[in-house]
Formats: sequence, C-alpha cells, structure tokens
Amino acid sequence: MSFSSFKKILVPVDGSEFSGKAVRVAVELAKRYDGNITLLHVISAPSSYLIAVPAAGATVEFVKEYYAQAKKRAEEWMGKYVAELESLGVKANSVVLEGASSVVEAITNYAENEKFDLIVIGTRGLSGFKRLLVGSVASGVVNHAHCSVLVVK
Amino acid sequence: MSFSSFKKILVPVDGSEFSGKAVRVAVELAKRYDGNITLLHVISAPSSYLIAVPAAGATVEFVKEYYAQAKKRAEEWMGKYVAELESLGVKANSVVLEGASSVVEAITNYAENEKFDLIVIGTRGLSGFKRLLVGSVASGVVNHAHCSVLVVK
Repeated sequence: MSFSSFKKILVPVDGSEFSGKAVRVAVELAKRYDGNITLLHVISAPSSYLIAVPAAGATVEFVKEYYAQAKKRAEEWMGKYVAELESLGVKANSVVLEGASSVVEAITNYAENEKFDLIVIGTRGLSGFKRLLVGSVASGVVNHAHCSVLVVK
Repeated sequence: MSFSSFKKILVPVDGSEFSGKAVRVAVELAKRYDGNITLLHVISAPSSYLIAVPAAGATVEFVKEYYAQAKKRAEEWMGKYVAELESLGVKANSVVLEGASSVVEAITNYAENEKFDLIVIGTRGLSGFKRLLVGSVASGVVNHAHCSVLVVK
C-alpha cells in the first residue's frame, strides 16, 4: 500500500505559530512512519509596487537586497528547526525557494518534482464562522497537490 | 502534544474508490497511533424536486422509503468495511446520519461534537489542471472542521 507510506514528508513553513504546529505533527508522523522531513520556505517575488517605488536605476539592487535579507532570515530560523528535529531523532533538511509568483504553485511543483508522499501544512485554528478563513495557501495546496495533504489546525 | 495524538479518527465514506483509499490510509494511521476508526456515511436530504414529484399524499411515504433504502444499502457496505478493519486489528465502528441538508456541515458537526482528533477524507486523484476539481465535500471539510484533516489523493 504505497499510498499510505508517508516516508517523504514536506512541511511548508513561514515562521508562524501555525507552521510550527504543523512541524510538530510532522515529527510525530515521521517517527511513526520512519520518514524524513523537508522544511520548505518560499520567498514570494516582491510586489511590482515595491519594485516600482525606487528610482529606476536602483531596482535591480533593491530586488537583490530583498531576496538576500529574506533568505538570510529564513535560513536562520529554519536552521534552528532542523537542529531541533535532528535532536528528536528525525532526519530533516531545509530548502528555500526564491522569487515565486505563486507560493501554492512553488510548493506543489516542488512536492511533485521531488516525489513527496505527504504535505503537512498549518492553518489558522479559528472557531465558528471564522473557520471559513482557512489560509488561502493551505486551501490552494489541498486543491493542487499531487499527493495527500494533512491540514493541521 | 495532544494535537498530534490521532486516537479518534473519523473517515467520511460514500462507497466510492476515493473513500476506500482514505479508509486504507486511516487503517495505517490507526495502527501507528493506536487509534480507532469511525466510518461516517451521510445520507443527504432528497432534493425538493424529488419530493415535489409524487402526488401530495405520497410525499411522506416517499421520503421514508428513500431513507430506508439508502440506509439499508449504506449499512450493508459499511458493515463489510468494519469487518475488514477489525480483521486487520483496528477498532472500528460505523455511523449513518440521515437527512442532512449539508453533507459538509453534518461531517464537521459530528466530528466536533464527538471530539475527533482527525478527519481522513478521500478526493479524486486527478492530474494536471483537473486537480482544481478537488471534491467540494473534501474542500468544505478542510475549511470548516475544528480538527486536522488529511485529504487523501
């Protein structure tokens, strides 16, 4: 039953408490399925508004600086996560993707190309009527992923 | 870490191959988390069109007959599932809910009232652009559930 073999687990993370909870659920799964975890952070392309603001000559430098800073920050907190996971006995690594115009597409394409078995993704744990406001990234990943998706609340 | 303790697992089933796959994934989870499975089948209310068709005097009988037949069929195939699950060493039971005007609401209300930890739900495993067509029930359950949801593809 290969479909239920959750060996390669992808966890999109954004540094929020919601993705932190998803990581903890993924750790429990990885232990039980003898799987490994890849943390994936996607840095969105800066909006055209932000790019348009600086003087024309500064644009390229501005975009470079934007990615460099975002990547540095992401690598810092993802490094801490990976160390924590490894201290729990779970094989883990982290990946940063830059410049995606669609975060959902970046996540689902990466999952498909790298043949992941499962995506574990966090979402806001709102109650009552507000539950409609499930994160649009989580909803999009559920809709577009080639593999099973666990939405953690 | 109670949030990742998948002890009480709810699997909405409709008799399709998609829900069959969800059941098999749930079995693997139940074994690994020492959990138990409740299979839930929701019989939608017959549409007002169907109710309006018979002569006025026959309406009540028609609705009764509709539920009786739908329930009988559901209990037959769900009984087979439960026996199969128990033969695999997994504690399982089945529940049929009648007359829901919203299948999504029936599933998510039941999950919340009965304090399930996880809903495992199947969806069409379509490829490419068709992936947009994730079942509306699965999407609705992801959006409205109080607990984590595993969408099986």
